[in-house]
Amino acid sequence: MNEGTQPIKLTDEQRLDWLRLIRSQNVGPRTFRALLNHCGGARAALEALPTLARRGGAAAPQICSREQAEREIEACGKFGVALVALGEANYPRRLQMIDDAPPLLAIRGNAEVLSMPLVAIVGSRNASAAGAKITERFTRGLCEAGFAIASGLARGIDAAAHRASLTSGTVAVLAGGQDRVYPPEHTDLLEAILPTGLALTEMPLGWEPRARDFPRRNRLISGLSLGVVIVEAAKRSGSLITARLAFEQGREVFAVPGSPLDPRAEGTNSLIKQGATPVTDADDIVSVLRPIIGADLPAREEDAEADEGPQVEPAHDERQRVIALLSPAPVSIDDLIRLSRSSPRVVRMVLLELEIAGRIERHGDGMMSLS
Amino acid sequence: MNEGTQPIKLTDEQRLDWLRLIRSQNVGPRTFRALLNHCGGARAALEALPTLARRGGAAAPQICSREQAEREIEACGKFGVALVALGEANYPRRLQMIDDAPPLLAIRGNAEVLSMPLVAIVGSRNASAAGAKITERFTRGLCEAGFAIASGLARGIDAAAHRASLTSGTVAVLAGGQDRVYPPEHTDLLEAILPTGLALTEMPLGWEPRARDFPRRNRLISGLSLGVVIVEAAKRSGSLITARLAFEQGREVFAVPGSPLDPRAEGTNSLIKQGATPVTDADDIVSVLRPIIGADLPAREEDAEADEGPQVEPAHDERQRVIALLSPAPVSIDDLIRLSRSSPRVVRMVLLELEIAGRIERHGDGMMSLS
Repeated sequence: MNEGTQPIKLTDEQRLDWLRLIRSQNVGPRTFRALLNHCGGARAALEALPTLARRGGAAAPQICSREQAEREIEACGKFGVALVALGEANYPRRLQMIDDAPPLLAIRGNAEVLSMPLVAIVGSRNASAAGAKITERFTRGLCEAGFAIASGLARGIDAAAHRASLTSGTVAVLAGGQDRVYPPEHTDLLEAILPTGLALTEMPLGWEPRARDFPRRNRLISGLSLGVVIVEAAKRSGSLITARLAFEQGREVFAVPGSPLDPRAEGTNSLIKQGATPVTDADDIVSVLRPIIGADLPAREEDAEADEGPQVEPAHDERQRVIALLSPAPVSIDDLIRLSRSSPRVVRMVLLELEIAGRIERHGDGMMSLS
Repeated sequence: MNEGTQPIKLTDEQRLDWLRLIRSQNVGPRTFRALLNHCGGARAALEALPTLARRGGAAAPQICSREQAEREIEACGKFGVALVALGEANYPRRLQMIDDAPPLLAIRGNAEVLSMPLVAIVGSRNASAAGAKITERFTRGLCEAGFAIASGLARGIDAAAHRASLTSGTVAVLAGGQDRVYPPEHTDLLEAILPTGLALTEMPLGWEPRARDFPRRNRLISGLSLGVVIVEAAKRSGSLITARLAFEQGREVFAVPGSPLDPRAEGTNSLIKQGATPVTDADDIVSVLRPIIGADLPAREEDAEADEGPQVEPAHDERQRVIALLSPAPVSIDDLIRLSRSSPRVVRMVLLELEIAGRIERHGDGMMSLS
């Protein structure tokens, strides 16, 4: 998981192990990272899963078999999908910086577009004619300025943004598998995107997107991008989730103002009140983003345990002290270390065991809760 | 020109002198203040005008005669207009704090409204139906929260703001005399305002407002108010002047966002980009203003020469050095003092002479230019 300027390159065997690990039960992007840090590699992590789960108080999790992973890789090949690992040359550089970056991305189309500076444009599915028009204007202006566009292939603003950037490059970030386009009527639009642009997802082929996959997907839209433009958004809409994630990821957030009488502007006006940059034309965006195109993002904080030496097995009472401190309300790892009076590496190991056992969830910012 | 909590009360004779002085040629609000500081009172200032003008290199300015002033006061009495002097109990407390506050205000109606916290609501003359609706909503919300409304009696947003605040109190700030309502079709609206509200102007009865009187008037709209709300405004509109003056006077500036496709929102969106607070309902305004209702404004800086003792007559070469430093581009008094190597009181006296001679103009922030 190299994040420097030197890209890594996985062997076929390593890629298979990475795929098995991320497709195994109770292993999300953050747990994947913790496992690699603890065990030294994906193969060792796969072997450790049953023991970790047992120590965490559960039966062994379902581990993705070698055969399953081989079948997925074979299907990807047939479907023209590449699996790019975090740290590899084709892995989008900005996405790599978020703390829940997918270990493997399934990409299809023209990977070159990922080397362009990306701006996300998102908004209401039931866009107004004015919203669609503004989206086209912004998109054309950004494309002329050398940006490519990322969006979610949804109806309304997303589709307008993709359509207006077909010739210059556009990235559709999917909530399901590469072969499960949502909404289905955008299958043709996606096909039109691929010659110059890209479809990208962290989900396996065949995965039908569920409701909760969309907000999860939204972190990739913002994570890929220098900034996110919200064109129209009602209150409590998915676009506002993308904006929140962008704020958390340290990305620029732009919002298009609208009349207080227009319900589609409630979300964007509220974002502006919260500090999003109001924008009325593409230049407003370009002038903010152009200076930071080459700039480094603050480096993602590496988990400290990576260099902690040989792994420990926590003693029973140490494990119990940590478990007793956990609740459904998220608590920080720092607090757990302080309150449990155990060493950081013991606490982290207990947490990893509990994650693999499916008993806790890892959130952003080093927060954990009982699941 | 007391600005503390103790109001002053002019005698009839003093009020007559103040009126003569402010109605004399080349005496604006800032020069009035400088004259009172230099000469110790309005009577002494009137007597000094010919000498000052002569020393400044011009014939004596037209001085408002005692008879003219008496006629104006008599006409005011017949028309129900009171002339309130800066520092008197009825003079609006916030307006008193701006550096070009009128020495005398002509008010007509219910002066009680000036003791309420005021919010200015201004905007396009050719308001949209949506703009008028938003204005009504905001106005009603502010009135319910205990604010009175100030505006400019113009068509469009101004009129909508006055109409929606008729019962709770509204202040119409005029660019001309009290008997010269503009636009004329708003004469009835003004009559409807007076039972609970007020008409206010610094101009004499009979004064037909000229184009340049409107921006000048706008400083009173913002100066009276805790904050200014711009509802709709095209680029380069009078409402943007009011917003700029409000920024300069340290008042809160609120702007209503609108669609980038709506030309009436160009001005307000641009204000938001410049730091105005975006507002979509009255509560957004109330929550900012309520905490500062009672708060003191930063005290207006008194001219330092007030306590400088006996007046001086600058020597010829001192005067020439100051004159040589002036140009049509405004220069600060501090720079003039530094570059002329004269004493502050000599420089200030030269400037006063030149003002009375009609050769220079005094701007805000202690800046002067050749006129």
